[in-house]
Amino acid sequence: MTTNLRAYLDNNATTRVDPQVVAAMLPFFTEDFGNASSTHEFGAAVAPALKAARQAVQALIGAEFDHEVIFTSGGTESNTTALLSALDTQAGRDEIVTSAVEHPAVLNLCQHLEKIGRAKIHVIPVNEAGDLDLEAYRAALSEKTAVVSIMWANNETGKIFPVAELATLAKTVGALFHTDAVQATGKIALNVKDKAIDILSLSGHKLHGPKGVGALYVKKGVKFSPLFRGGKQERGRRAGTENAPGIVGLGAAAKLALEADYARIAALRDRLQQGLAAAIPCALVNGGGARLPNTLNIAFGYADSEALLHKLDRTGIAASSGSACASGSMEPSHVLRALRVPPLYLQGALRFSLSRDTTDAEIDAVLQHLPAIVASAREKSPLWVEFCKKTA
Amino acid sequence: MTTNLRAYLDNNATTRVDPQVVAAMLPFFTEDFGNASSTHEFGAAVAPALKAARQAVQALIGAEFDHEVIFTSGGTESNTTALLSALDTQAGRDEIVTSAVEHPAVLNLCQHLEKIGRAKIHVIPVNEAGDLDLEAYRAALSEKTAVVSIMWANNETGKIFPVAELATLAKTVGALFHTDAVQATGKIALNVKDKAIDILSLSGHKLHGPKGVGALYVKKGVKFSPLFRGGKQERGRRAGTENAPGIVGLGAAAKLALEADYARIAALRDRLQQGLAAAIPCALVNGGGARLPNTLNIAFGYADSEALLHKLDRTGIAASSGSACASGSMEPSHVLRALRVPPLYLQGALRFSLSRDTTDAEIDAVLQHLPAIVASAREKSPLWVEFCKKTA
Repeated sequence: MTTNLRAYLDNNATTRVDPQVVAAMLPFFTEDFGNASSTHEFGAAVAPALKAARQAVQALIGAEFDHEVIFTSGGTESNTTALLSALDTQAGRDEIVTSAVEHPAVLNLCQHLEKIGRAKIHVIPVNEAGDLDLEAYRAALSEKTAVVSIMWANNETGKIFPVAELATLAKTVGALFHTDAVQATGKIALNVKDKAIDILSLSGHKLHGPKGVGALYVKKGVKFSPLFRGGKQERGRRAGTENAPGIVGLGAAAKLALEADYARIAALRDRLQQGLAAAIPCALVNGGGARLPNTLNIAFGYADSEALLHKLDRTGIAASSGSACASGSMEPSHVLRALRVPPLYLQGALRFSLSRDTTDAEIDAVLQHLPAIVASAREKSPLWVEFCKKTA
Repeated sequence: MTTNLRAYLDNNATTRVDPQVVAAMLPFFTEDFGNASSTHEFGAAVAPALKAARQAVQALIGAEFDHEVIFTSGGTESNTTALLSALDTQAGRDEIVTSAVEHPAVLNLCQHLEKIGRAKIHVIPVNEAGDLDLEAYRAALSEKTAVVSIMWANNETGKIFPVAELATLAKTVGALFHTDAVQATGKIALNVKDKAIDILSLSGHKLHGPKGVGALYVKKGVKFSPLFRGGKQERGRRAGTENAPGIVGLGAAAKLALEADYARIAALRDRLQQGLAAAIPCALVNGGGARLPNTLNIAFGYADSEALLHKLDRTGIAASSGSACASGSMEPSHVLRALRVPPLYLQGALRFSLSRDTTDAEIDAVLQHLPAIVASAREKSPLWVEFCKKTA
């Protein structure tokens, strides 16, 4: 079964760093290696490069000012900083409103904050299509809400949330609105300056940038409390020597993301979805409505995703059963449980996430191999055999 | 005055990434780019590489177990995590004992924690030689002490603190002992397993590794409260996709640091010190006793360090007046003020910090140029002119 094929369809876990990004980073390791805060020649080239990267991120998310962008070590730091800052700065407010399908970086932090008595958490459910329960959302908002944290797009299903509308609603009670845009950034237009979004998290490695670098957008005028206090880097909002190569890499990745052809990616994704749905019975696409152009979450009833993934891997195809953060945990995804995916399908969900590197051949490979893999896996399922007898 | 010389003597601010480190990192950007948490082939090469890096850091600091090493985004994150974790886990204790010469990442955080009522801070003074006031230290320790945070070596003077002894004293009251070893790591043997040190911070870019990566050593059995909660990375102690290239780079840097010839570096530093002291009157070396082999902090009375640094920079020589974090602030260093450096010398301090890259020619260049630069600067000082008249 082994072939020379290598199909990488797990881009929501992480992406290949673009060779142009690596090239942009390289001088900052061994040539322009100075500390950006130093006043001598060795640090001189660094500050302008950081400024250019900041402007590239500003352009990517459509922010009004470049100083609204603070560089961090990644999505988890950005999300953590956002929520803790909001609690610190919103006097008299100690509630957080979030959704049942957030990334663990938000949900686990919220759980911890509730456990230590630092905040009360409202977790808003979603329906089968993944849409947020707007009534429950409105009901949870109050003058006690310090911050709302709702992701722009879900990492497992690609579902896009109406963050502009949700942010406007949050404003009616004077709450801050934070969005985890780690999966959305670079895949759809964000244009934050037109929206009531106060804080936004993004990560470099989800958009062909390096791991270990991300950013936090904090709208001008929004009160902010730093997580790292020390040096005066990032205008005193994030202490620590600037990760110059990483930041330059994120800037280069942001520029390239603006040029990506997502219509092509969406067409590939749609071809994959239609092909799989046509070839494999009892397949269920998770997350309806607006979706990221690169994501397909599809559950195969009467099958086990870990077994499917293992066989796909041996064929040279990389996909995922959920988020990489939960891989190997064998627990069904909290996102799919929130969507109330039927029990017989819950363990058989696969996530295919494409990128601008994705080729027709990679999609062909999945369409060629997966139907047989699913059929073979189902043969071992007594429930499936019974189901076939009944429907025969 | 411009020459082709480029002398980099600001290695305590940051170091040039070793080309071997960059070479070790490169495959993890574009080839083995998978998420370490993913179970497929694209992530398969990453986990063993992270383990090897962890073992390299373990070896460098002389830890007993590799899982005592947690990778972070750098020294500031490590220090912040250490102090907040200690406060969270040491029930009934809310005091921190620290020194007047700590890095701002510790001092500014402590100041903030005191301001918000989260902790009471005891700042232990040092004497003119930079030695910690042991009597004050003993007096500050109590059953209320959650954690002691004393640096292993000072970033501005290179002064080495007796952390083994200080840690043993902290144990007598049941407090945790944290040390900021960002400057000490890789320059002197640490061997933490023989000491009562519970938590240690280190940073990659101070030892020819990349920026944006560091580590926290947490001794086995010490209670720990994560700063980032989310994914299960780093055994649940630091959520967020692993910065694989950065971690691999830190591992490579750790290996190279173990091989560095610090006797040669100390000899160069001593030649610089003796040469400057012989050629320039009214020069005062700051920080007596045990010092890092690479650091010289020397103050020139009746001179202004910013002016000296500017002229050195134009000659191609990079040095510093203190830490890079405080550069451009024009305030006298809090470290030199704590050492009670005489007023006429306080504004004229320069820090030369060497590395294994430092050459004889770089030292020669400073010895060749600095005496004239100081003399020229002093000519403009009325106090100096008067001083010369008196002593003539």
